[in-house]
Amino acid sequence: MTDFFTPPPSEKSVLEEGALLSPRFDSSGLVTAVVCDAGDNEVLMLAFMNAEALKLTIETGIAHYWSRSRNSLWKKGETSGNLQMVQDIRVDCDQDAILLKVRVTGADATCHTGRRSCFYRKVVLEDGRPRLETDAAPLFDPDTVYGKK
Amino acid sequence: MTDFFTPPPSEKSVLEEGALLSPRFDSSGLVTAVVCDAGDNEVLMLAFMNAEALKLTIETGIAHYWSRSRNSLWKKGETSGNLQMVQDIRVDCDQDAILLKVRVTGADATCHTGRRSCFYRKVVLEDGRPRLETDAAPLFDPDTVYGKK
Repeated sequence: MTDFFTPPPSEKSVLEEGALLSPRFDSSGLVTAVVCDAGDNEVLMLAFMNAEALKLTIETGIAHYWSRSRNSLWKKGETSGNLQMVQDIRVDCDQDAILLKVRVTGADATCHTGRRSCFYRKVVLEDGRPRLETDAAPLFDPDTVYGKK
Repeated sequence: MTDFFTPPPSEKSVLEEGALLSPRFDSSGLVTAVVCDAGDNEVLMLAFMNAEALKLTIETGIAHYWSRSRNSLWKKGETSGNLQMVQDIRVDCDQDAILLKVRVTGADATCHTGRRSCFYRKVVLEDGRPRLETDAAPLFDPDTVYGKK
């Protein structure tokens, strides 16, 4: 893996303006990945990648993550059929975040609740208190796809 | 702050399908915020919010974050003039991430390098190794706006 990524440079200008990918993995060995639809840019989910997941994503063009709950490599959509075909991979200025622009196969649903995006609830203020309004319906039935919990 | 947000419920279905905002702040007291343009959905940056920053953002409609490097509350754009006027605030399924849809004032540049988005470099494979291609130019001169470092 050390052969694939370049270790982060000490010079801030090199990190921010250079042509070498030097992901700044955190103390758990992870970078944050934002995932959006390559068509309309809608943000679909947020996930984490370790070096192996990022390398696999770059090499295969199919999104791989690190599941913090299962503590294992996670090829997104392997169970649901909603794979993420990567159209564009970007890194942010200080190289601690990745942006994937993807086309989702199958039902075009990224969230495990069956919805297109994980961000299906809008925050509204009501009498000075925040409330959530759901404005997206599931595109598949999670119980059918993942099995009844 | 405990009066403003509801503590995360133990029931997963309430957390994921309920109408109460219960941000799951991490051990450092932070949630991740993804910021995109309210017009074309382009992802502009990734940042962090503590409870105070999130409450201020919801109440004022202007994006506030927690700066991990400065260890302080950060009203984005206070120095550069590129404030983020919040059009839509969303929370993800398990409530550990926030999505802001914003309109940026001033030069419409969010990145401290002067570019519109922090994700101005694309990852490409070249002879099996990842390389970065910059495809966005600065909209302001950081040295002029922030002072020469």
